[in-house]
Amino acid sequence: MNDWALAIDVGGTKLAAARVRGDGGVMVRAQRPTPGTVDADELWAALLSLVADVTGGEDPDRIGVGCGGPMRWPDGNVSPLNIPAWRDFPLRQRLRERHPGAIVRVHNDAIAMAVGEHWRGAGRGSSNFLGVVVSTGVGGGLVIGDRVVNGRSGNAGHVGHVVVEPSGPACACGGVGCVEAVARGPAVVAWAQQRGWSPPAGDASGVTLAESARDGDPVAVAAFAHAGEAIGLALASVVAALDLDAVAVGGGLANAGELLFGPLQAAFDRHARLDFSRGCRIVPAQLGRDAGLVGAAAFVLAADHYWPAGAD
Amino acid sequence: MNDWALAIDVGGTKLAAARVRGDGGVMVRAQRPTPGTVDADELWAALLSLVADVTGGEDPDRIGVGCGGPMRWPDGNVSPLNIPAWRDFPLRQRLRERHPGAIVRVHNDAIAMAVGEHWRGAGRGSSNFLGVVVSTGVGGGLVIGDRVVNGRSGNAGHVGHVVVEPSGPACACGGVGCVEAVARGPAVVAWAQQRGWSPPAGDASGVTLAESARDGDPVAVAAFAHAGEAIGLALASVVAALDLDAVAVGGGLANAGELLFGPLQAAFDRHARLDFSRGCRIVPAQLGRDAGLVGAAAFVLAADHYWPAGAD
Repeated sequence: MNDWALAIDVGGTKLAAARVRGDGGVMVRAQRPTPGTVDADELWAALLSLVADVTGGEDPDRIGVGCGGPMRWPDGNVSPLNIPAWRDFPLRQRLRERHPGAIVRVHNDAIAMAVGEHWRGAGRGSSNFLGVVVSTGVGGGLVIGDRVVNGRSGNAGHVGHVVVEPSGPACACGGVGCVEAVARGPAVVAWAQQRGWSPPAGDASGVTLAESARDGDPVAVAAFAHAGEAIGLALASVVAALDLDAVAVGGGLANAGELLFGPLQAAFDRHARLDFSRGCRIVPAQLGRDAGLVGAAAFVLAADHYWPAGAD
Repeated sequence: MNDWALAIDVGGTKLAAARVRGDGGVMVRAQRPTPGTVDADELWAALLSLVADVTGGEDPDRIGVGCGGPMRWPDGNVSPLNIPAWRDFPLRQRLRERHPGAIVRVHNDAIAMAVGEHWRGAGRGSSNFLGVVVSTGVGGGLVIGDRVVNGRSGNAGHVGHVVVEPSGPACACGGVGCVEAVARGPAVVAWAQQRGWSPPAGDASGVTLAESARDGDPVAVAAFAHAGEAIGLALASVVAALDLDAVAVGGGLANAGELLFGPLQAAFDRHARLDFSRGCRIVPAQLGRDAGLVGAAAFVLAADHYWPAGAD
């Protein structure tokens, strides 16, 4: 058996792969933008080429994958919302065919992120933990009693669809007022633009919005506050239901730091009043872009906590 | 070892005790109103007398208790909100002293209800299940992967404090807009009274409000709809976060039946749009007043699912 696992992170923006050691350390890492193709095999070929960059021709015997959802789980047939090339693409099966005898496990990328943070990041030592990603969407993963929660169909952790504004904006899911509809990066940027913010250099994004906010632009500041409040409210609901030790918040929008976390914590404190809820810590994620890779590796390297028996 | 366990249910309105068989069947049952005393030992004596009615002098070797919260868990020092006589009362320790050698387990009464419904009621066969009680308060208990969820401090399942009206009514917990503040029985009755409903015979309660609603009183109908919508919204949030198979709703207010469940399901359907959420069944609880006793018995009779190793 190798002393490393192959970890793969498939997202709408980038593909990443790494060799990860048994202790969760990332040894070799490679990434590239996700090809804009609609051809399933072209994307598959791009992924294989990236994998070859980190394996250097050695044959992996354990492969963990985080991939954008939705997917059929644990089958690993993936239909990532932001990757039109793959619809019901048999990613797990393809990897097994490519690496006969290897253990291959595929799960939602937000769950991989949460697992990575629990195993080696901000969630270490928290038996009851939620990892949240605030990016193009709002996703998450749950660890309860030191075990990842999968739910009936592998979809536990979809905290982006906790309702925070019952009569609020329509969500891509078809619902109304989900925290994702309010606080996902593009919604936050659009909220600011509708109120008169325009990016200094013409590039409207979470990054430029944060720059404007740091420069004191009141609309930009208010946009992060609006998003933070929505997230804080959602977390108060989830923490009440689950009695968690800690929540880690990561993803692109979390890079805004206190601009987001200040209003987030204030909203959480306003709504989470029971003693046990007040005791829950809300902290920034620690592993940054590596969280998904580390978590993907945990599916095969620390399966007793992060992969349910019988789901192979 | 006896072929039965002693089950005890301590609530603000009534005390109940039963002998429960290994298969969850209730053999002998007794109940009485909770004494209005503020003397801890007087209440304890009343409970002992009730227990004697069902044990008939036989010594129980397994005792499961559901009790109103909050409590220190698993210590079983209880401070039930609606029972001022007991503040940090060492219920578990007292029962152990009274029955040396017996296994004694005490947990939140809403968790006992949920466990009862999972073991022998509406949640049978649902690996990922939420039981909700809508009564004087709104409480609940969670089963995930066929195991009860306790959380960091034994407080998991407090779904009454999921936020459904961010700028809504103040909640007894100190928060704002919790589903409990909107949908607990007394709040529903008060909502109707503020809008002109008065009970035909002068007794304003959930029961008489339901009678008025069945008689077509539009304010009474709207009051149940308002509560049902709040509960449906809260359930949409919890189901999104946890990917549950089923939710059972019980408690006094649930006796209103379709008056509550119709609007509840409609609100759930409006907000729970992801495929996996739509697949979650919402059903009435089945065990009625026995749910808490059956669940309390499950803590000692089916501990592999309902009591965590190491929490004795």
